[in-house]
Amino acid sequence: MSESVLPKGFLLSTASAAIKKPGRADIALIYSERDANAAGVFTKNRIKGAPVKLCMERIRSGRGRAIIANSGNSNACTGPKGVKDAGETARAVAGCLGIEERLVYVSSTGVIGSPLPMKRILPAIPRLCSGLGKASLKDAASAIMTTDTFPKHSSKTVQIGRLGGTVSGISKGAGMICPDMATMLSFIITDIAVEKTALGKALRESVQKSFNRITVDGDMSTSDTVIILSNGALGNPEIKAGGRRYEAFRKALDALTFEMARMVAGDGEGATKLITVAVKGAKTRAEAKKGAFSVANSNLFKTAMYGMDANWGRIMAALGSSGINIREERTDIYFGRVKAVRNGVSTGRDTEAGKTLRGKEIKVTIDLKAGDSSYEVLTCDISPQYVSINAEYRT
Amino acid sequence: MSESVLPKGFLLSTASAAIKKPGRADIALIYSERDANAAGVFTKNRIKGAPVKLCMERIRSGRGRAIIANSGNSNACTGPKGVKDAGETARAVAGCLGIEERLVYVSSTGVIGSPLPMKRILPAIPRLCSGLGKASLKDAASAIMTTDTFPKHSSKTVQIGRLGGTVSGISKGAGMICPDMATMLSFIITDIAVEKTALGKALRESVQKSFNRITVDGDMSTSDTVIILSNGALGNPEIKAGGRRYEAFRKALDALTFEMARMVAGDGEGATKLITVAVKGAKTRAEAKKGAFSVANSNLFKTAMYGMDANWGRIMAALGSSGINIREERTDIYFGRVKAVRNGVSTGRDTEAGKTLRGKEIKVTIDLKAGDSSYEVLTCDISPQYVSINAEYRT
Repeated sequence: MSESVLPKGFLLSTASAAIKKPGRADIALIYSERDANAAGVFTKNRIKGAPVKLCMERIRSGRGRAIIANSGNSNACTGPKGVKDAGETARAVAGCLGIEERLVYVSSTGVIGSPLPMKRILPAIPRLCSGLGKASLKDAASAIMTTDTFPKHSSKTVQIGRLGGTVSGISKGAGMICPDMATMLSFIITDIAVEKTALGKALRESVQKSFNRITVDGDMSTSDTVIILSNGALGNPEIKAGGRRYEAFRKALDALTFEMARMVAGDGEGATKLITVAVKGAKTRAEAKKGAFSVANSNLFKTAMYGMDANWGRIMAALGSSGINIREERTDIYFGRVKAVRNGVSTGRDTEAGKTLRGKEIKVTIDLKAGDSSYEVLTCDISPQYVSINAEYRT
Repeated sequence: MSESVLPKGFLLSTASAAIKKPGRADIALIYSERDANAAGVFTKNRIKGAPVKLCMERIRSGRGRAIIANSGNSNACTGPKGVKDAGETARAVAGCLGIEERLVYVSSTGVIGSPLPMKRILPAIPRLCSGLGKASLKDAASAIMTTDTFPKHSSKTVQIGRLGGTVSGISKGAGMICPDMATMLSFIITDIAVEKTALGKALRESVQKSFNRITVDGDMSTSDTVIILSNGALGNPEIKAGGRRYEAFRKALDALTFEMARMVAGDGEGATKLITVAVKGAKTRAEAKKGAFSVANSNLFKTAMYGMDANWGRIMAALGSSGINIREERTDIYFGRVKAVRNGVSTGRDTEAGKTLRGKEIKVTIDLKAGDSSYEVLTCDISPQYVSINAEYRT
C-alpha cells in the first residue's frame, strides 16, 4: 500500500466508544478547517440506515465540514429512534466543533437492528474533537473496519497548474460485498477546489468505474455510502467540469477509487483471491455487465476458484442463466492466458488453466464473439471461512 | 420416507458404467411395458445440455416409453459430439428394447464440459435392458445421485373410480439448488391413464408449486429436467383436464412433487436445515415471490441460519434490495412463532427467536402488511461444508 498523505486543511481523530465491544478505536472524525464542497453516492437499497437518510438529505446543499463514522453498529432498521440518534450525534459534533449542524455527516456500519449505544457514543465526541490532528488516514481507516482484515486508505497527488494537490480516501470493505450486502463505506477528501456540480459528476462517474464494479446494482447494503469533501485549501481557482484541470482531478480520483475498490474486493470475508471477471465481445455493454456479474456472483464459480479448479462449465451455466444473448457454439473462455474453451467446447487444457488459479490475483475472460462491448467486474472467491465468519457475526 | 411402490406396467434397472469413477450403479433405466403419454419441464438456462435438447424435441409428441439417466457426467457444453452421444445412447436403448427410438428420453447429470465416456456407457445398455425388473425405485434414485446424501423417491396412491392408481417418482437433488444451478432431475411414472394435454398441464402446474419454489426462475442448471410418463396400465378411461378424477390425480401429483422438492431442498450440499421463507401481506403474488427468493438466496441470511442467529437485519436488507415495494415501518418478521420485528423495529426477542432455529426445519415469515398476497420458498442454510464440497467437486 502506498503511503497516504492528508490533504491540506483536514484533520482526523479517532476514539474508543466500546460500540460493539471495548478495546479498539471504533469512531473516526474527519474535519475540514473550512467549509467544503460535498458530494455523495448512497445505497439503492429501499431500506436505508438512519445515517444514510440524514446524509442524503444534507448532501443536497453540496456543502460539508465534518464526517463522523462508527463501526460496530449500523443504526439501520432502528426506527424513529435511529433517526433521532443520528441527528443527535451530528448535533453533538457540530456543538463541539462550533460549526453548523447541517454541515456534519454521519455514517455507521455494523450490526443492523440494534439501537446505537448513545450513552457511550456521546461522551466520546468531545474526545474526538479535542483529539483532531492526532490520527492518520490509517488510524481513521482502522476505526471504521468491521470484518476487514486490513485498513484501506490511499492518496493520489495531482498537479493543478503549479500547485500539488492531494486526493485521499479511507474505505471499509465489506464482508462479502459482491454477492450480497455487507456494507461498503468510503470517505474521500481533497484540498483541490472543485465546483460542487463538477465534484458530484466526477464522484458518480468514478464510483461507477470502481465501487459499483464490485457490487451488484440494487443489491446493496442498507448503509453503503461514499462521500467526498473538497475544501479548496490548495488555493486553486475552483475547477469546473470539462477542461484539463478537471481531467487531471478526475484521473486522480478514479485511480484512488479503483485502488480502494480492489482492496475491498480482495479483502472479502474469508477471501483468498482477487478475481477479475471480464466479458468481451458482447452485443452491448449492458449485456457484458449482466454476464460478468452473473458469473462473479455465482457461488459455484466462487467455490471453484477457491478450489483452484478451472471448472468452466459453471461459467457457461452462469452465463446461460443470466438472460443475456449467448451462443454456446461461439463462446471462448480463458483462465489467465490459457484458452480453456473454444467455441463452447473444451480445448483439453483444464489442468494448465487450473495452474493460473494458484496466484492471489486471477483473471477469467469470456469472449462471446457477438459484438464489441466489454465489462470487467472485481470479485473474490468464497471459502469455508466466509461461512464461519458470517454464521458467527453477531455472537 | 414412505415406502415407494412401482406403478403397474413399469420396470426399472440400474447398471455400473464407471462414468465418473467405478464401484457404484450410475445409470438407471425406466421402462414402460406399453407406450405412455409423456410431458416434461426443462431448464430455462440458455445453455442446455445435449440430453435436454433431445428431450425437448421428443417431448412434443406427448409420447414416451423409456428414460435412461446417468450421473457423473451431464453431457452439457460438449458441442456436436454431445448431441451425437445423447442420440446414440437413445438409439442403443431403443435397439435393445425393440422400441421406437423417438420414445426414448435421455438425461444426464454431473460434471459439465467433458464428453460422455461412450465406451463404458454403450456396453452397459444391454445389461440395463436385461436387468429390467430387478431394481426398485430406491435403486434407480440411488443411481442418479451426485452429491445427494440420500436417494429421493416416493409414491402416492389415488382412487380413480374403483381403481387404485399409483404416482411414483425419483429425484436427484442438487447440490445447492437454490442460489445457483446444480442440477435437479425428477422422473415421475404413473399407471393412471391421463390424456397428454392434461398431463402436461398438471405437470407444469405441479412443478410451479414444488420444484420451482426451490430454484430461481432463469437461474437454473443446464440440465434441469422433470419428465412424467403415464402408461394407463391401470385401465381407467383416459382422464382429461377438469373434473373430479383429474383433481384426484393432480392432488396426488402435487403431493408427490412437493414431497420430493422438500427432500431436495433439505439435502442441499452441506445443508443442516430445511428453511421455509414465507412472505405474506404483499401487494401482489409476484412481489411476494420476489421478496421471498431475495431472502432465500441471500448468502448472509443462509449463513445466519446455519449459525442459528435470528439476524433479521439481513432479512430486511435482502427485502430492501429485492426491488419490491416495502415499507420498513410496516414490516413484521417472525422466526417460527416468535415475532422478532414489529413495524420495522426489534421486539427485543432475538434470543428467543434464535431458539426456534435449533431444529432441522425452520420457518421465517415476513409480513409486509401491504396487501393480501403471499408466497413460500423452500431453501436450506449454507455451511462451510458447502464450500468444501464445491471447491473439490471435480477433483
